[in-house]
Amino acid sequence: MHPFTNNPRDSVSALGEAKLIAAIRRWLGSASPRAPFGIGDDCAVVPAGRAAQLITVDPVIYGEHIDDSVPPRAGGEKLFKRNLSDIAAMGGRPRAAVVALAIDSHVKLKWLEQFYRGLATVSRRYHVPIVGGDIAHHRGGIVATLTLVGEAPMKGRVLTRTGAKTDDWIFVTGSLGNSLRSGHHWKFSPCLAEGQWLARQPAVRSMIDVSDGLAKDLQALAPKGAAPALDASAIPLRAGADLRGALTDGEDYELAFTLAASANREAFFRAWRKKFPYTKLSCLGRFVRPNAVPDGALTLTDYRGFEHLR
Amino acid sequence: MHPFTNNPRDSVSALGEAKLIAAIRRWLGSASPRAPFGIGDDCAVVPAGRAAQLITVDPVIYGEHIDDSVPPRAGGEKLFKRNLSDIAAMGGRPRAAVVALAIDSHVKLKWLEQFYRGLATVSRRYHVPIVGGDIAHHRGGIVATLTLVGEAPMKGRVLTRTGAKTDDWIFVTGSLGNSLRSGHHWKFSPCLAEGQWLARQPAVRSMIDVSDGLAKDLQALAPKGAAPALDASAIPLRAGADLRGALTDGEDYELAFTLAASANREAFFRAWRKKFPYTKLSCLGRFVRPNAVPDGALTLTDYRGFEHLR
Repeated sequence: MHPFTNNPRDSVSALGEAKLIAAIRRWLGSASPRAPFGIGDDCAVVPAGRAAQLITVDPVIYGEHIDDSVPPRAGGEKLFKRNLSDIAAMGGRPRAAVVALAIDSHVKLKWLEQFYRGLATVSRRYHVPIVGGDIAHHRGGIVATLTLVGEAPMKGRVLTRTGAKTDDWIFVTGSLGNSLRSGHHWKFSPCLAEGQWLARQPAVRSMIDVSDGLAKDLQALAPKGAAPALDASAIPLRAGADLRGALTDGEDYELAFTLAASANREAFFRAWRKKFPYTKLSCLGRFVRPNAVPDGALTLTDYRGFEHLR
Repeated sequence: MHPFTNNPRDSVSALGEAKLIAAIRRWLGSASPRAPFGIGDDCAVVPAGRAAQLITVDPVIYGEHIDDSVPPRAGGEKLFKRNLSDIAAMGGRPRAAVVALAIDSHVKLKWLEQFYRGLATVSRRYHVPIVGGDIAHHRGGIVATLTLVGEAPMKGRVLTRTGAKTDDWIFVTGSLGNSLRSGHHWKFSPCLAEGQWLARQPAVRSMIDVSDGLAKDLQALAPKGAAPALDASAIPLRAGADLRGALTDGEDYELAFTLAASANREAFFRAWRKKFPYTKLSCLGRFVRPNAVPDGALTLTDYRGFEHLR
């Protein structure tokens, strides 16, 4: 659906601010608790947590992250899910979200309703209330920004991007590549349960969600002085993807993580399959020093992930 | 400063993402701790708080909240301060901020540097680290969204918009009106200390920050079945403001709050002046039932505050 209309009666300007906010609260329904625990006061109030807090923010921008080929409802879902994927990448639990919307007054009410209903769907599916937000005029565009707060798992720890050591094994969940044409970029499910489980495994030493392409995102996990040496045949390709796409397309929203070289890989795979029988897991290779690259290994110097602002 | 340039060498596209993020971290300096407690991982990590969490989000949009007449550094300051004002309105303490920036690739590096240096200035002044963020391409615009997390004061409580009772006195800090031409809309200081002190006074029953104009914002404090009856001569006018402007201009970022009718107003004023000798405080009137409006009182039915999206 194209989001803009020249018919004022069908646009957000038909309602004005107060009625628009009332409509948004109706669209969100049970996804949005009452103030002060939800929309309607200067701040939202969230009960104190017991573990370290996590905070992440990502936008969905019309013309960049979504276009007319993505149903507006799926756009709202994508906005929420891409932030959930960041919480998943630290092994955390999401707790509450706020949404700031900057929109042109020509945006169709119908489009906006579907967008918020998408947000509400994800909110309910993952039990993460939408506790507040803001709506502001923005000539010519749609920028929706969601901030998610979460917390570290109580008996686990926060899994950061640093922590991998040379010789650690490199794993990735799911399949990679062709996320745009396949619609995976909005159809994906964030790996929340997987991330929380991985954060409880002491041998898992670092983690990231694959959003800019594996080639670029693995750089963030690489220990100092080491680089990934991968088995090209082990890279899990999404239908329609080639190797280059799997390494550089981005928007996979899978988890890449490292396992200590000393860990029992077979036992780890068994535990994974028992816990997540429907989530594919692939061991792609390991981090090695430049002089220790095995013959035939795929190195990533020729591949670049998605570059923003170029 | 106009934010856009057609000279690619002076624009954000000259750097590309990795170098731009490095530049932003340099501009933020000590305002931005290292990952995982700051920029550089999938989420920022903030130590667990002991009181209820507060969350608020507000944007600064080029062409709406700032234009070429506002120095970019002041634009960054405004973005941070308008969110601090929302934390102040609940009596809370700010703890950490994340900033999501959606920008056209033609934005001048110099403009962006000043904007982030403004953010850093406020971060250091109020001891609120910038712990994370996002930067994304957005053709044709600049939308900067800051989310602030805070916590309720330990020995106080969260002051919400609801809680006022009929006959409660209505107070406001500072002066109102003419915020645009005077530059107050970006020069203001958020009333954080005042808000925290007010939340510790049991007789203060509700509070809001005046951002859409007093006429509109007082509606949010009104107890059911009551309306504000004000003394027009008590409304504190900013230089250059008339009564209508003071009631409807908006962007005052002052605190409006209510005091129980049974409270000792003189003692309250004395305590205020001792604590905040440089912050003006005015008692404007009280909330009354429609049949109890005093002769000559100003009611607000003829005034409307700032309406977004019209």
